[in-house]
Amino acid sequence: MLPLDSTELSTLKKLLDSRQPNHGLPRQFYQDELLYRIEMDAIWRQGWLFAGHSCQIPNAGDYFLYDVEGDSVIIVRGDDGNVNAIYNVCRHRGSLICLKAEGSVKRFVCPYHQWTYDRSGHLLLQNGMQEGLDKTQLGLHHAHAREVEGLIYINLAREPLDFDTFMAAVSPVAKPQGMARARVAKIMDFDVQANWKLVWENNRECYHCNVNHPQYIKANFDHYNADDTIPRIAERLKAVTTRLEAKLAAQGMSMRQETGMTEFPDPDHSIWYAANRTPLVEGYVSETMDGKPVAPLMGDYSDPDVGTLRIRSLPNFWIHASCDHCVSVRLTPNGLTHTSIRMTWLVAAKAEQGRDYDLGQLLPFWLLTAEQDWELCLRQQHGVNSHAYTPGPLSSYKEYNLDRFLRWYVNEIKGYVKNEYS
Amino acid sequence: MLPLDSTELSTLKKLLDSRQPNHGLPRQFYQDELLYRIEMDAIWRQGWLFAGHSCQIPNAGDYFLYDVEGDSVIIVRGDDGNVNAIYNVCRHRGSLICLKAEGSVKRFVCPYHQWTYDRSGHLLLQNGMQEGLDKTQLGLHHAHAREVEGLIYINLAREPLDFDTFMAAVSPVAKPQGMARARVAKIMDFDVQANWKLVWENNRECYHCNVNHPQYIKANFDHYNADDTIPRIAERLKAVTTRLEAKLAAQGMSMRQETGMTEFPDPDHSIWYAANRTPLVEGYVSETMDGKPVAPLMGDYSDPDVGTLRIRSLPNFWIHASCDHCVSVRLTPNGLTHTSIRMTWLVAAKAEQGRDYDLGQLLPFWLLTAEQDWELCLRQQHGVNSHAYTPGPLSSYKEYNLDRFLRWYVNEIKGYVKNEYS
Amino acid sequence: MLPLDSTELSTLKKLLDSRQPNHGLPRQFYQDELLYRIEMDAIWRQGWLFAGHSCQIPNAGDYFLYDVEGDSVIIVRGDDGNVNAIYNVCRHRGSLICLKAEGSVKRFVCPYHQWTYDRSGHLLLQNGMQEGLDKTQLGLHHAHAREVEGLIYINLAREPLDFDTFMAAVSPVAKPQGMARARVAKIMDFDVQANWKLVWENNRECYHCNVNHPQYIKANFDHYNADDTIPRIAERLKAVTTRLEAKLAAQGMSMRQETGMTEFPDPDHSIWYAANRTPLVEGYVSETMDGKPVAPLMGDYSDPDVGTLRIRSLPNFWIHASCDHCVSVRLTPNGLTHTSIRMTWLVAAKAEQGRDYDLGQLLPFWLLTAEQDWELCLRQQHGVNSHAYTPGPLSSYKEYNLDRFLRWYVNEIKGYVKNEYS
Repeated sequence: MLPLDSTELSTLKKLLDSRQPNHGLPRQFYQDELLYRIEMDAIWRQGWLFAGHSCQIPNAGDYFLYDVEGDSVIIVRGDDGNVNAIYNVCRHRGSLICLKAEGSVKRFVCPYHQWTYDRSGHLLLQNGMQEGLDKTQLGLHHAHAREVEGLIYINLAREPLDFDTFMAAVSPVAKPQGMARARVAKIMDFDVQANWKLVWENNRECYHCNVNHPQYIKANFDHYNADDTIPRIAERLKAVTTRLEAKLAAQGMSMRQETGMTEFPDPDHSIWYAANRTPLVEGYVSETMDGKPVAPLMGDYSDPDVGTLRIRSLPNFWIHASCDHCVSVRLTPNGLTHTSIRMTWLVAAKAEQGRDYDLGQLLPFWLLTAEQDWELCLRQQHGVNSHAYTPGPLSSYKEYNLDRFLRWYVNEIKGYVKNEYS
Repeated sequence: MLPLDSTELSTLKKLLDSRQPNHGLPRQFYQDELLYRIEMDAIWRQGWLFAGHSCQIPNAGDYFLYDVEGDSVIIVRGDDGNVNAIYNVCRHRGSLICLKAEGSVKRFVCPYHQWTYDRSGHLLLQNGMQEGLDKTQLGLHHAHAREVEGLIYINLAREPLDFDTFMAAVSPVAKPQGMARARVAKIMDFDVQANWKLVWENNRECYHCNVNHPQYIKANFDHYNADDTIPRIAERLKAVTTRLEAKLAAQGMSMRQETGMTEFPDPDHSIWYAANRTPLVEGYVSETMDGKPVAPLMGDYSDPDVGTLRIRSLPNFWIHASCDHCVSVRLTPNGLTHTSIRMTWLVAAKAEQGRDYDLGQLLPFWLLTAEQDWELCLRQQHGVNSHAYTPGPLSSYKEYNLDRFLRWYVNEIKGYVKNEYS
Repeated sequence: MLPLDSTELSTLKKLLDSRQPNHGLPRQFYQDELLYRIEMDAIWRQGWLFAGHSCQIPNAGDYFLYDVEGDSVIIVRGDDGNVNAIYNVCRHRGSLICLKAEGSVKRFVCPYHQWTYDRSGHLLLQNGMQEGLDKTQLGLHHAHAREVEGLIYINLAREPLDFDTFMAAVSPVAKPQGMARARVAKIMDFDVQANWKLVWENNRECYHCNVNHPQYIKANFDHYNADDTIPRIAERLKAVTTRLEAKLAAQGMSMRQETGMTEFPDPDHSIWYAANRTPLVEGYVSETMDGKPVAPLMGDYSDPDVGTLRIRSLPNFWIHASCDHCVSVRLTPNGLTHTSIRMTWLVAAKAEQGRDYDLGQLLPFWLLTAEQDWELCLRQQHGVNSHAYTPGPLSSYKEYNLDRFLRWYVNEIKGYVKNEYS
């Protein structure tokens, strides 16, 4: 917890009160270094962070690193099959232990002085040290780690938020996708020169889709909202929905019927996650360039016509899943004006590149859409930096989720400040 | 306006009082981040800033961007022929609107959500927004903009300094040059790793010219000052001056007769601009490598023998104009130790590259001289950073204008601090 | 001296008290910008800094630059044969005077306005300045400079620490090496992304040697310590020591007999230097890949079998000297997380590359060892940055010198803070 003097605290509180309802955030929210530190404590070190996919570490000892908020965390599968999140910092002199971004280990051996830990982080050997040190007090530090339907989450707080309600909400919707028995087809990393909130703001509305996402809008109904759903569109939506609902029900799945984007998050109840299934446009069974599948069916699906599954969790994750592949997005703030973004494409475990899928067909839909978004974010970052920037009104038709996100964000920070500094 | 607590304010005032008369500035003037912010507010957001040349945007809708002090400003010619300075920040979510450094537009359409503004910045369309928003309150924000004899100035203050007296002083001297009907032959941008004040300090004396500017001193008398004007030089100057004065008078122009550099600025009267004509060395009619013209005559000139015209305005502009071309310099601070510098070469509008002028002949004189200066500035920046730097005495013969600049600078900051913080 | 308000001072004092005995330093010691500034004042601007080797500037006017703590210092041999440390900052406007990293000068002429100084820094000429300036007050500023047995030290304090006791301790041990009549075979510069203290922490223990320094441990006994000196090793050491001691005594030299690394520094008496001779492993007469000499004997040596000579001085120097060559290391902090490191290989003055030595044989032993260490340091820097880092216990067998270094460091800072801020 950051020490704040009374002037700083009062300035911070004024800033948090300065957002006008149904408007964007004032400039200082994207410029203030102190607020950024508070965000890290209040949101990023409190919330559950998506780290990666279970299928990246199928066997005991398999690990990958996740660098977040100055910490290197080893995400490793333990001997009991559970995932552990272990800080990559030797208890002796603080050296990094794992140097490679991913791999498989029998034990963790610090390369500096060979202190040796088991795969759960217990200290086994410390040759060269005096007698009398208590090894049980010198195990590697842990973060919290959980898995849900093939998604690995970590939490850096001492006492983490409840994970079980999230799991209960997501699990039934996500299960048929079979992400726990998928394989990684591609990982791509991006450094987007924009504050992490701007990336979410972009994600929380499809007002920008019509012009900026020519691929995406061919497959989705998101960009149709209350303001522009003429009868013809409404009829299309109804037909598509009715048809798909019946098919899904037969397979024990359900879906959402509203037009526009699902309402998310829920700032009034501090709900930071959502999962739902929604129809694709007629003729599309996968979010691909032509709507056709590009890989074998995943999970429990026996029919490609399952619409699209979406899961989101604040502060750092969303995924779009089609019948044959899914694409996750992981955000990691990297200072006030940089966000590291990892995109991961999954296909069924049994699928083989070349034989069952081709990256040239798998990647373009979401890669193009993502790169279009990253460009929008950095333009906005440049503009909100300006002295001339003043937050404008949000569209009640098309930016309701953006407003929800901003309310959630301000609530979270206010709650934290109230708890910790009063 | 920056919030300053009482300790900061008192430290700032002490610093402002610490300059010894006729000496350079103490080290802290080049190192203090807080002072830099105050400079931005007191000088750069108050003064008139040269943005570019009228001939860059001859027609309605033509624009170029000027990035200054964190703000992107669109300099655009309006339908009434006047120049507008419009902040490049959408009133919706703050995105940049114009992405290209220059171009021509019918309307401004924000690429994020297509809010659409006319060329004066009035909001025309905001499809997707709810009813009831007042479009007249959502036009693009403006800075002030003025033109004088082909030079475009902007001002970021709410209530700008008087421009008319500047115009009255510069216009008669500048008019014959015909910069309003010129064309851009070349633009070059430099990132000079030196505080913006050091660039001015370098510009305000020709003490360094003899050794560092072998090209420049062949064409100019500036480096002769009271201390080294031996009778032979004095006679040369007198002869040159008398001759040129007569010729110019016949054409309705006048010139300055003193030796050395024109006194500028005038800190006692807060005068931030000057314009004058001065003779070149015998045999030189243009500031070129051999003194011969390299392009057709500009403006109203019918004879190449018009000496050289110089205009300066604080905090960011000077220009050297010969009969056939002129070269402007625009400074933009980019943090404590960086200055972005744009040089622009103009020739007569009718001149065509290849036929009427050749860049290989047009550029070298000022390009070499400028690069020599940028190098001097960065060496000085390196030195004044040292703990061992102590400001030395200025030459009363050769650095009188540097002393004037430093007095002007300190006065401006003091005046601002007095007005705003007491 | 940095101004500190009472909160900052009290935070600093708490931090200095927070180190647990026989443990590493808490995270803040590697992260706090304010502490870094205090370190610069308390240690780097107080202590004697190794600058380079006497043989780099054999003749009057020979100089090299040393950039340390924002200051460029000219290390120049004066007409009287003594070394001067002169700040590379003109007394006129503060420009750098010497631009090349090394060279030979008759006079120092500032390239900006040609103020001219003699080789001791006295102002000789200032053409273009008014009468009445007192040249004797405008000489270049000096730091302190001393030489001992071919090593040049400078001191940036107004009143430097005593140098004579250092000289008295080092001189008799170092003299036979003949560094004053050596030549530079190679200089290599490294930017190590680690705090300067981490580089010393690495240097002050050989616990990491066994695995990380396969070359080094073949030649040295350092990695054998109280904990692992089995009778066989003890006998080897005794035999080697007895033999070498006799040989050295015959030549008027002495050596150290303990196992492990010489105890250094001595925090209880604020001793910042040490020099000693120690045996190499059987069969090794030089710290080279195969233990054989790679260059002619240096200094007074008539027999290659002289063990190895080591000198260290805090905060920035150590050297390893064999019969035929020596390798010095000079540290220069470059912000919280960067250390500039210069390694210099010396051989006898008479040795000629190609004929008497070959860089392919001379460099690898220490170059490999050094690069192994720099890599260890940057991994540790990455780890101690983590929120999860907690200082661990130090090995009483193998990290006693690291503990001594940390105690010395904390004592120095505490002493400075007590003197200057109370």
